[in-house]
Amino acid sequence: MNATVGELGEREVLARVLARLSPSASARLGPGDDCAVLGFEGDAVVTTDTMIEGPDFRLAWHDGFELGWKLAATNLSDVAAMGARPTALTVALAVPHETPVDLLERIARGLDAACRQLAPGCGVIGGDLGRAPVVTASVTALGDLEGRPPVTRSGARPGDRVAYAGQLGLAGLGLSLLFAEAADPDGTAHSRSLPALRRAYPAAVAAQLAPEPPIALGAAAADAGATAMMDVSDSLSIDADRLARASGVTVDLDALLLERGFGVQHGAAVPIGAMLTGGEDHGLLATFPASAALPHGFLPIGAVRDIDSGSAAAPGIRLDGGALDPAGWDPYTVRPPGS
Amino acid sequence: MNATVGELGEREVLARVLARLSPSASARLGPGDDCAVLGFEGDAVVTTDTMIEGPDFRLAWHDGFELGWKLAATNLSDVAAMGARPTALTVALAVPHETPVDLLERIARGLDAACRQLAPGCGVIGGDLGRAPVVTASVTALGDLEGRPPVTRSGARPGDRVAYAGQLGLAGLGLSLLFAEAADPDGTAHSRSLPALRRAYPAAVAAQLAPEPPIALGAAAADAGATAMMDVSDSLSIDADRLARASGVTVDLDALLLERGFGVQHGAAVPIGAMLTGGEDHGLLATFPASAALPHGFLPIGAVRDIDSGSAAAPGIRLDGGALDPAGWDPYTVRPPGS
Repeated sequence: MNATVGELGEREVLARVLARLSPSASARLGPGDDCAVLGFEGDAVVTTDTMIEGPDFRLAWHDGFELGWKLAATNLSDVAAMGARPTALTVALAVPHETPVDLLERIARGLDAACRQLAPGCGVIGGDLGRAPVVTASVTALGDLEGRPPVTRSGARPGDRVAYAGQLGLAGLGLSLLFAEAADPDGTAHSRSLPALRRAYPAAVAAQLAPEPPIALGAAAADAGATAMMDVSDSLSIDADRLARASGVTVDLDALLLERGFGVQHGAAVPIGAMLTGGEDHGLLATFPASAALPHGFLPIGAVRDIDSGSAAAPGIRLDGGALDPAGWDPYTVRPPGS
Repeated sequence: MNATVGELGEREVLARVLARLSPSASARLGPGDDCAVLGFEGDAVVTTDTMIEGPDFRLAWHDGFELGWKLAATNLSDVAAMGARPTALTVALAVPHETPVDLLERIARGLDAACRQLAPGCGVIGGDLGRAPVVTASVTALGDLEGRPPVTRSGARPGDRVAYAGQLGLAGLGLSLLFAEAADPDGTAHSRSLPALRRAYPAAVAAQLAPEPPIALGAAAADAGATAMMDVSDSLSIDADRLARASGVTVDLDALLLERGFGVQHGAAVPIGAMLTGGEDHGLLATFPASAALPHGFLPIGAVRDIDSGSAAAPGIRLDGGALDPAGWDPYTVRPPGS
């Protein structure tokens, strides 16, 4: 039952993994040949991301299913952020020989479930299985712009509204909770208190281990006239600053709008510090012309201003018109839900 | 000058690596946003492959340039084998902190040079840089079928000619030479005798470290009516057997044709055992209707027969009508060039 990858051999492991995967609706030819074949209605978007055991995830915290889910979700959000519909993933997995095959099957089920729930029609079209000292997963995601022009980071214009869709700060809260409650003093992850942590902070832990970015809203934002868009992977302050610099504008975030829109998420209180500095939510940050109706799911969080207005001398972010340093994950205070 | 990846930081390393890369002619938007954007004339083909230090390559043998070259070449050949023109690569590199930045720059130069020489117009459109215990590189290659239907493994028909383009057995000879002359008795690679080995066996060593598959011949074979095609990565006997089984036919290889076409390559004598069992040449194995003229660069090596002809009872390979076991790399006898 719990055979290892080394015992079973590549061919049998691949067969078991493939059995967990649903096809891509855009695939004209699936796995099994030298390449898969995909049809596109418009231009294609491509992104790639690697997650490595140790720096990027810890198997003491991530169940295989959640790991597969997160692998898919984080790549799908990059596709969505261009205004494209995700159509296919390729997955290169490399694992130690002593890895239970079961882990790979769970990863495959998580990849498949995330595609089905977050981006119906998208599926794994190909991959590769190899040997590595630690679990290493590289995912490449492909999407179809379906005739839409891509939405880049550089199109925000003064007067645009700034909006966000998805969870904000929850994944960062989850990470700080995990480090506080499910790691030894030297930072080594353990799973002893994980069940209790999942019960006490279900939304934050789930956001960190298996985030659910609003993938379908990427194409919706493009259709609604989004002028710029990106997924928030490092933190809202860091990524909004990048968008501002790429567009040559000031992105002025509004604390009251952030508090109103994202102060309570799934029953959990999220402080504004967590919203600004927490990473890995993979929600969509977008700018829209003031005249555009925001697509359902996006909430306003600020405004795009000219860099000459106020005291801002260079492109970048501000909070309520004042200075704000872009910052990523920090040990900010964690408040229990409802406090 | 010899800064490490850890000293320099991800942003500066990426900037140095990107500076080594030429754009893809199909890219509508290159690296720097959440995704790159690519245009396709026809259906797209996608393949992915990972090379990991240890099982897949040894830095004692591979110069960084050669490693980048091989990473590109082995993926480009999968694209070519579908009858497509390679248009873009994404590259996910993960390395230890103490890796010299110089190595990554050389890998980038090798990737770029291989694209320019083997598949003009193809370029790296995106990637990812991470941390791993050993050098880990995942490449995804994309190609454009430009309106052609894909050439799969399963279309070979009785009466077709079997042909091959590229080096055959040379890369396997190179590997056995490297293990014989540039490895300690326990198999640990070293570079002490590498310069002498490169001088004595330039073609075989180069074929192993930086193969030059005939990428442009993939689309040419499709245009010439190829009924089935694949790249030979494991060995001619193993991969021809796969093609035969996928097509439900017998692939009957002809020793005289193999000897005549591939007995001497770049001045090096290649025994038929090496042709049949050597891997990693990444040349193109294809079948063509008897009436078709073979594209320049393909040489005939056998015929497709019905599984009912002769004594073959199931699909698979034969040599001169007789039994042949599919086999990969083996310590076959190595003959010096010209002997």
